[in-house]
Amino acid sequence: VRWEERRFVVQGPKLLGEALNAGVVPDAVYLDAAGSNHTCRTLAERARDHGTEVFELAAGVLARASDEVNPQPVAAVVPMVDVPLVSLAEPIPSVLLVCVAVQDPGNAGTVVRSAAASGVGAVIFCAGAVDIFNPKAVRASAGAVFHVPIVAGPGPAEVLGQLGDWGFTRLATVARGGRDYATVDLGSPTALVLGSETHGLPDSLTDRLDGRVTIPMASSSESLNVAMAATILCFEAARRGRADRPGEAGAGPPR
Amino acid sequence: VRWEERRFVVQGPKLLGEALNAGVVPDAVYLDAAGSNHTCRTLAERARDHGTEVFELAAGVLARASDEVNPQPVAAVVPMVDVPLVSLAEPIPSVLLVCVAVQDPGNAGTVVRSAAASGVGAVIFCAGAVDIFNPKAVRASAGAVFHVPIVAGPGPAEVLGQLGDWGFTRLATVARGGRDYATVDLGSPTALVLGSETHGLPDSLTDRLDGRVTIPMASSSESLNVAMAATILCFEAARRGRADRPGEAGAGPPR
Repeated sequence: VRWEERRFVVQGPKLLGEALNAGVVPDAVYLDAAGSNHTCRTLAERARDHGTEVFELAAGVLARASDEVNPQPVAAVVPMVDVPLVSLAEPIPSVLLVCVAVQDPGNAGTVVRSAAASGVGAVIFCAGAVDIFNPKAVRASAGAVFHVPIVAGPGPAEVLGQLGDWGFTRLATVARGGRDYATVDLGSPTALVLGSETHGLPDSLTDRLDGRVTIPMASSSESLNVAMAATILCFEAARRGRADRPGEAGAGPPR
Repeated sequence: VRWEERRFVVQGPKLLGEALNAGVVPDAVYLDAAGSNHTCRTLAERARDHGTEVFELAAGVLARASDEVNPQPVAAVVPMVDVPLVSLAEPIPSVLLVCVAVQDPGNAGTVVRSAAASGVGAVIFCAGAVDIFNPKAVRASAGAVFHVPIVAGPGPAEVLGQLGDWGFTRLATVARGGRDYATVDLGSPTALVLGSETHGLPDSLTDRLDGRVTIPMASSSESLNVAMAATILCFEAARRGRADRPGEAGAGPPR
C-alpha cells in the first residue's frame, strides 16, 4: 500500500531524526513502551509539536511489525518524499543518477547516500528498479532519501527521452569497453545511468544513449557492485566541482 | 579455530572459483548431494586434480552447517592466504589501506574488494578489526581476498610504526577537519588509515600519524560508511596512477 497511500515507514531514531531535520512531518509516530529511550521520546515530542499523532505501543508490538533483525523502539509513517520528473527541469542539476534496474535495496540506499553526500543533484529510480522507499533501502540510505531529490516510477524510455530533451548527456555505465570515467566531461548536465547488479544495462537501451563510461579495474577478474560504482562516479563529479571552484568550501558538482 | 588451524571456509561456486583461479588449493571441498550442479561439480573436479579431497554430503547437511540465508551447494576449506607484514617491504606498494577497527564484516569485505579492483597494493587488518576471513567478510569481498595481499593481526602501533620506518606517509581518514583527499600527494608510498564505523580513529592514534584526510561532503548532515570512504580513496589513487601513465591500460596506482 506504500504507493497507493503515498506513505512509507521509517524505523529508528536516526532515520526519524533525519526526516524531522528535513522538515518532513510524520502522520504518526509509534513508540515501544519498554524499549524507547529519551532520544526516541524527544523525537516523538518534536513530531507532536508539528501535529503528528504519537502512539505508545505495548512492549514488543513494534518489534513484531518490523522486518529488522534488531527492531527499533520507534517508527513513523511519513508522507512520500519523491518529486516529479518535471521538477528537475528548473534548475537543471549538473549531474544526476538514473537507476534503471537496481534490484538490491541495500545498493539502492547506498546510491542515494552517495548522491546526497557528494552533492549530486538527483536520483531517478525507473520503473523496474527496487522501491527506494522500502524499509531496507531507506535504512541503507542512512536517511539520505530525505536530503536529495528522488524521482520514482517513470519508465526508462520516458526518463531518458526527457533528459535528452533537456540537454543532458546521458552516459551508460558499463563494466568494460566504455570511456574512462576520469576523462569524461562532467561540466555540462550529465545523467549517469546505472543498470542491474547482475545484467548491467541492456544494449537496446545503451545504444540509444550518448556514450558509455567504465571504471577501469586492476584486472578483468575484479568487479564492483553498482553502489560502489555510483559512489566513485558521484565523488568524481564532486571532486571536479571543487577543482573548478577552488575557493569554495564543501563538496558537490557545479550547480 | 580459524586462526589456530590457519584455515577458513569459502562458500559457493563463485568464491571457490576465485580461490582456484588464484592458485589456492583447498584441503577439502564439500558438495551437497542434491543441490550441487554442473558448475559446482566441475570446480570440485578442478580441486581434486590438485589433490583436494572431495566429499559428497547428504542433502541439507551443508546448509545446516552454513550461516547463509541462502545456503550454497558447495563449500571448501582453504589455507589462510594472509601475508606477513614484512612481506610488504619489498617492493613497497605505492598505496595501501590500514583498517584499525573496522567492525562490520560486510564493510571489511567491501574494503578488500575495492582495494583489489583499484589495484591498491595491500590491506592490513590490525588486531581489533573484524576477522577478514570470516564467511560474511569473504562473501562481501566477492573473492577479492584471494587477489590482494592481506596482512591480519598485528596491533595498530606495530603496523603504523613499521610503515613509518619504511617511509610511508601515514594518513588518518577523518570525517571532518582533514585535508581534502583530492589535494593530497599520493605519489610516494602512502598508508590510508581507516577507523571504526562508529568511532572513527582515536585521537591518540591520529596524533601520531603524518596527516589527516577528509572526503568533503555536501553538508554536515551527510555521512559515508567506511567501505564507501575506502572505495573513493582507492579509486582516487587509481585515477592518479592512470593520469601519471596515460599510455598504459588498466587501473592502479603507480607501482
